[in-house]
Amino acid sequence: ADKIKHKDLSDPFANDPYRHPALRVNSEKPFNAEPPPSLLVDSFVTPNELFFVRNHLPVPQCDMQNFKLRVEVPGKKTINLSMDNLKKNFKEHTIMATMQCAGNRRSQMSGYKTVKGLSWRYGAISTAEWTGVKLRDLLLQAGLTEEDEAKFAHIQFEGLDKDASGGHYGSSIPFSVAMNPFRDVLVAYKMNGTDIPADHGCPLRVIIPGNIGARSVKWLYKIVASDQESPSHWQQNDYKSFNPSVDFGQLDYKTAPAIQEYPVQSAICTPRDGSKVDVDEEKVTIKGYAWSGGGRGILRVDVSVDGGKEWHVAELQDAGQKISRVWAWTLWEAEIPIPKDHGGKLDICCKAIDSSHNVQPDTMKGIWNVRGLLNTAWHRIHVGVVQEE
Amino acid sequence: ADKIKHKDLSDPFANDPYRHPALRVNSEKPFNAEPPPSLLVDSFVTPNELFFVRNHLPVPQCDMQNFKLRVEVPGKKTINLSMDNLKKNFKEHTIMATMQCAGNRRSQMSGYKTVKGLSWRYGAISTAEWTGVKLRDLLLQAGLTEEDEAKFAHIQFEGLDKDASGGHYGSSIPFSVAMNPFRDVLVAYKMNGTDIPADHGCPLRVIIPGNIGARSVKWLYKIVASDQESPSHWQQNDYKSFNPSVDFGQLDYKTAPAIQEYPVQSAICTPRDGSKVDVDEEKVTIKGYAWSGGGRGILRVDVSVDGGKEWHVAELQDAGQKISRVWAWTLWEAEIPIPKDHGGKLDICCKAIDSSHNVQPDTMKGIWNVRGLLNTAWHRIHVGVVQEE
Ligand SMILES: [Mo]
Ligand SMILES: [Mo]
Repeated sequence: ADKIKHKDLSDPFANDPYRHPALRVNSEKPFNAEPPPSLLVDSFVTPNELFFVRNHLPVPQCDMQNFKLRVEVPGKKTINLSMDNLKKNFKEHTIMATMQCAGNRRSQMSGYKTVKGLSWRYGAISTAEWTGVKLRDLLLQAGLTEEDEAKFAHIQFEGLDKDASGGHYGSSIPFSVAMNPFRDVLVAYKMNGTDIPADHGCPLRVIIPGNIGARSVKWLYKIVASDQESPSHWQQNDYKSFNPSVDFGQLDYKTAPAIQEYPVQSAICTPRDGSKVDVDEEKVTIKGYAWSGGGRGILRVDVSVDGGKEWHVAELQDAGQKISRVWAWTLWEAEIPIPKDHGGKLDICCKAIDSSHNVQPDTMKGIWNVRGLLNTAWHRIHVGVVQEE
Repeated sequence: ADKIKHKDLSDPFANDPYRHPALRVNSEKPFNAEPPPSLLVDSFVTPNELFFVRNHLPVPQCDMQNFKLRVEVPGKKTINLSMDNLKKNFKEHTIMATMQCAGNRRSQMSGYKTVKGLSWRYGAISTAEWTGVKLRDLLLQAGLTEEDEAKFAHIQFEGLDKDASGGHYGSSIPFSVAMNPFRDVLVAYKMNGTDIPADHGCPLRVIIPGNIGARSVKWLYKIVASDQESPSHWQQNDYKSFNPSVDFGQLDYKTAPAIQEYPVQSAICTPRDGSKVDVDEEKVTIKGYAWSGGGRGILRVDVSVDGGKEWHVAELQDAGQKISRVWAWTLWEAEIPIPKDHGGKLDICCKAIDSSHNVQPDTMKGIWNVRGLLNTAWHRIHVGVVQEE
């Protein structure tokens, strides 16, 4: 901070904030970075400065003096809410929710067969306590009722971040998600008890717990009820999945639905892939995360050190979440004896089961897709077994 | 019907009803049988006489003159409802819902490694229109409110069917499922427009759409709100899943949760496994079903005739269900060219993706369990390619 950088004012990224040096950068402009996996499992709630950053565009400047959130229900009401108004006139809620980029674990999918997109390892996931008001309460205030689904099937969001031609980042979610009182969609102004930092959507971010991160629009300034999904690039022509036989030339985005809820996921955070364990330790301690979309909790995590021949049940840490509205991840830990016939290496893998008994696929054979989205195959790492002197 | 069978009155199964001869019987006493898969995909709604039958005990006789359904909320009210009362005093609802036994496709799991249980092929699934009243409305009438979850976490059911020692079949579901207005749990008295047949729960069956069939208690006569799950054998010591390394001697049912929602499933119904297609036809038409639990709809079904190297997207028939409350299956059809390099056989497989982008596992390697439950691995069949004269 005591170094003065010479800013290039023609650079739209000139006002991007300071970032923590521990973050592994996948892209500088726009900024995309993930924390080291070993730090992720150090605490149930990820510190703000280590929370993964997935920006599609330059970080926008918000004129806080004049900022108002616009909530528009065509044919009913449009309301414009100052930050003060938002905080004073609606009930405050806090939820613990995990955010995960749909591209998390993409680099491993590329290892199977090349895909296009930012090369996320397995740190494009983090957990925070989000505080704000319920989106449902804002929509009710703007005149939307539970009977309006046929007319307003989608709730659209726009962020202050803009591309070179002035188009805003945007997304939408189904009416049934936005208006479901059990779905806990928030318009948040706090992240882990402090104002939301610049990289994470200051002053407002809509939090769609249980959905892919791309739907949780940062720098939120506009909410519109509509009969259409968001027209934005990221709703229409990105964040959609195809089967493994569809290659780049054949992508017809109109044929695929926009990804909303996340399927069940897990990953091994320690030990590090390619590291070594001492055979004299006799055991290896393995730690990681598991999470599923739609509020589904994690029932069990199975861990193997022999590539899936023998499975061990991990100890779970879920912070006491209710099984039917589980928005945050489950951290897990397994202490597994090093097998006698290790042959100098451990083939460690994990897989999780969610409250609907959904499972992760064995491999990427059936889920590989050209955009590298939703890689939820069993996570596998290789660790050497050595004899220390 | 014109044949008079000599009844053995000491046989508790003596009063079991007539069954359609097309059903493939897995067990006579208790009666368990499934329709041929090719008939399953002939119609979106399964005719009652072809609907799979999964009975745990003899079919009970119901004294219709004196029958009353008991709904009990301890410390609040107990109500006893005659059939007339039930039909006249509560709003009638009809839902189309698929019922699937948690043991569907068990025989294929046994092909991987032997499991214990009824050897269901892939017909332990059927779809009907169920008409009745909402369980939620009955519970509200008995004094349960939305704020009672902490006190009554479970809603228990009992059927009139009894084992040799007089114990009733029973199950329970979470409060949040029973009381959720979007979850559509019914106490049904009609199945496809007629009184529920004897094998399917006459006069009442609770329908928990999106959950395993075992929770939808037939011959329902008692509903109790409780802080405990059902004490029945089938809730406590069956219908639970373990990882592939747990063998029979090690089963500790207390460590595993009772299975409720079903994960995503699909199967190929025609052509038949082991049948032949004529190479001069140039194409093969493949039909099947796909379904997922929790109201999640089917987004896509992928079909391959070369064991998963090349995938084709199937045409879906979902009868216009809403994507967020999809209780019935999706039928699908794919017409796929016979590859030039067929080598005399087709290795046909299918897999489905649900609205949360959950997928089926590639193989049984990670999901095999000693009780053979929830086999949702890619369904595979083999078909010969021949040159007709
Ligand atoms: Mo993302
Ligand atoms: Mo079942």
